[in-house]
Amino acid sequence: MIHLFSNDNTIVNNYIAELRNIEVQKDSLRFRNNLRRIGLHMGYEISKKLNYTTMEVQTPLGIATQSICDDQIVLGTILRAGLPLHEGLLETFDQAENAIISAYRKHDTDIKFHIEVEYMSAPSLQDKVLILCDPMLATGMSMVSCWKILTERRGMPKSTHIVSVIASEDGLNHTRHHLPADVSYWIGAVDPELNAKSYIIPGLGDAGDLAYGVKL
Amino acid sequence: MIHLFSNDNTIVNNYIAELRNIEVQKDSLRFRNNLRRIGLHMGYEISKKLNYTTMEVQTPLGIATQSICDDQIVLGTILRAGLPLHEGLLETFDQAENAIISAYRKHDTDIKFHIEVEYMSAPSLQDKVLILCDPMLATGMSMVSCWKILTERRGMPKSTHIVSVIASEDGLNHTRHHLPADVSYWIGAVDPELNAKSYIIPGLGDAGDLAYGVKL
Amino acid sequence: MIHLFSNDNTIVNNYIAELRNIEVQKDSLRFRNNLRRIGLHMGYEISKKLNYTTMEVQTPLGIATQSICDDQIVLGTILRAGLPLHEGLLETFDQAENAIISAYRKHDTDIKFHIEVEYMSAPSLQDKVLILCDPMLATGMSMVSCWKILTERRGMPKSTHIVSVIASEDGLNHTRHHLPADVSYWIGAVDPELNAKSYIIPGLGDAGDLAYGVKL
Amino acid sequence: MIHLFSNDNTIVNNYIAELRNIEVQKDSLRFRNNLRRIGLHMGYEISKKLNYTTMEVQTPLGIATQSICDDQIVLGTILRAGLPLHEGLLETFDQAENAIISAYRKHDTDIKFHIEVEYMSAPSLQDKVLILCDPMLATGMSMVSCWKILTERRGMPKSTHIVSVIASEDGLNHTRHHLPADVSYWIGAVDPELNAKSYIIPGLGDAGDLAYGVKL
Repeated sequence: MIHLFSNDNTIVNNYIAELRNIEVQKDSLRFRNNLRRIGLHMGYEISKKLNYTTMEVQTPLGIATQSICDDQIVLGTILRAGLPLHEGLLETFDQAENAIISAYRKHDTDIKFHIEVEYMSAPSLQDKVLILCDPMLATGMSMVSCWKILTERRGMPKSTHIVSVIASEDGLNHTRHHLPADVSYWIGAVDPELNAKSYIIPGLGDAGDLAYGVKL
Repeated sequence: MIHLFSNDNTIVNNYIAELRNIEVQKDSLRFRNNLRRIGLHMGYEISKKLNYTTMEVQTPLGIATQSICDDQIVLGTILRAGLPLHEGLLETFDQAENAIISAYRKHDTDIKFHIEVEYMSAPSLQDKVLILCDPMLATGMSMVSCWKILTERRGMPKSTHIVSVIASEDGLNHTRHHLPADVSYWIGAVDPELNAKSYIIPGLGDAGDLAYGVKL
Repeated sequence: MIHLFSNDNTIVNNYIAELRNIEVQKDSLRFRNNLRRIGLHMGYEISKKLNYTTMEVQTPLGIATQSICDDQIVLGTILRAGLPLHEGLLETFDQAENAIISAYRKHDTDIKFHIEVEYMSAPSLQDKVLILCDPMLATGMSMVSCWKILTERRGMPKSTHIVSVIASEDGLNHTRHHLPADVSYWIGAVDPELNAKSYIIPGLGDAGDLAYGVKL
Repeated sequence: MIHLFSNDNTIVNNYIAELRNIEVQKDSLRFRNNLRRIGLHMGYEISKKLNYTTMEVQTPLGIATQSICDDQIVLGTILRAGLPLHEGLLETFDQAENAIISAYRKHDTDIKFHIEVEYMSAPSLQDKVLILCDPMLATGMSMVSCWKILTERRGMPKSTHIVSVIASEDGLNHTRHHLPADVSYWIGAVDPELNAKSYIIPGLGDAGDLAYGVKL
């Protein structure tokens, strides 16, 4: 299942427009805040697909019957650009466990690279709901690698939700091709192209640099 | 149109369960935070009903076409319990104008009262989208009074969205009876009863007191 | 005691510079956020003057002795401009009680006015610590009126802390003249002048309008 | 210079008491929020040591002279426990660049270990102000290793500020012994002991687990 937010009109589209806007990008606080808000609301949409159970709650004035999400959720994030998105997801699912993983493009030549995973901190994923986020799905290679390493080392979740703000068509296809068919995708917008350096066009540039500063 | 969040399973139900829970209520920070999160997500749902226009946005790497909400939104809140809900709505619609209004139950006898409006700060509402919030819709009398005063004094919005976390059946009926038929309602849960002091049963108690402390 | 933040170099000065800046003011989210951050940090400075008691805390690995603020704090705010400042203060003192009061300039002529108090929600103040905030201390008349009404109706706090971002010299003098000598002042900057319409010069304009939109 | 927050009475002590409290720790949202608030206020204290320059700011009503911090700040954080502290620091210094580094205890035997650095994303540090945070300074080995690697690879900052919530006496001594004499320390509390597994006693347990869930 692909939930493409640009197909519907929601306020999330305004946040994505600001993220893309080369003028608004000068304000890194707003940039991070927009990623965080997208995480918040994408988490809310994902919550519609989770499992709920009915409970009785004692109020000061009586007993209320409430339906409560009782899935065990693990919020996974790919460093470093995923952090503000993760912050929003964690604000929505404040009792979730968390997995942090880093993957980078190791360049073999100027334009050819493969993905190396270097850092991982994660709980068991077995039979839990994994929500794995990265703002940009460019080639899709790092998302696929991270998912594979996480699930090989920590067990198979009962469901996986991939969260991304902008995906390239190729990146989304690559990811869907390599991940199981029942994985769900929550994507802000799909852009048509990847350039020679594997940046999404028109995209928004480098989300990590815009959120946290250019790294050497 | 009534959008009743308890009809669907979303994480908002968990927040409402915590708001109701007499044990969790001891943590007023969490209480305020849950109201804020409900405001955030209800705002997001409301945004699906707004008007959008297509714009071109210059990114660092190209030009993107984005659909942007271009309604003029006024977020109205009823003091004081509405403030945390308003905070969440304003986080979602950060460029909105704001209206703040206070109304109170003036008791004629111990159990009989009417609503007095004492404070109002508001922009023109003419042809704008008014989102008016109060966490509890008990009798509905203060919501109706506030809406009438706002629109009489500031002009008629092109649409009104009423946001409330818990409504009584009677309160929702009263409100729908007295407001125009095209008003939309975004309600967390509808509870069956009002007690003699016009508190919702089972409800959650006094939202203002729980968020800000008991007032004399 | 007057604690004048502009006498020391702290990051709060950057926030005040942004609040004043006519270009940065276009971003009302940043405007509110700067008021909130000033509230956060002024609250922290005020906390150095409060009473603490020693407690033992059970950790997972032993018992720690901790000094804990045990004053009963009431955070008072003057509508509507005080709300973002109040939000920051409440983030610092999350267990405080809260008082909300509104006062407005009732114009007798175009340039002459007196202060009317119209809304008040407050707990007992007797023997508590009152922290009362308003971003602008222009004439000081509304601060003085609000303090008097709060303390006449809700009892005398054991100490009062006035929080303001920008005060005029006259406004600060007026306030100090009319409030008890032991009141403490936490002021971001003191500006030299009031214009004929009682706006602080150079000031920042109307804080309420900049945070929440122009009201009719 | 060591700034030991437990020597003074500030509201930060309340946050530390909650962080330590085995009952309050059950609420991971509050745990993260307390780390964030400590980051906020420690950042504010650090800002008193930074460089400022005088600027003129155009307000809507005149020109104000403001003193502005103009240091280039890099906020460094050690994964994963440092992230909520970093969030607070970044809220205070919203225009800072950021460095993220991971270091872990590689166990040679059950109780003997050395530190390995596995992930690093950082800008140039040359002549900037580095604020490097980790909530727990247990042995101090990972702080020392991270600082050395950051400065060897990214250049020498003009000043370094180490931020930590709880340090062991040994850990603080170890760090001071291995870092340059002009490094500043901003420590919430110093605890007397390290146990055989290098946990601080009484401390608070594992800050990363309490914030993000137990990792396998």
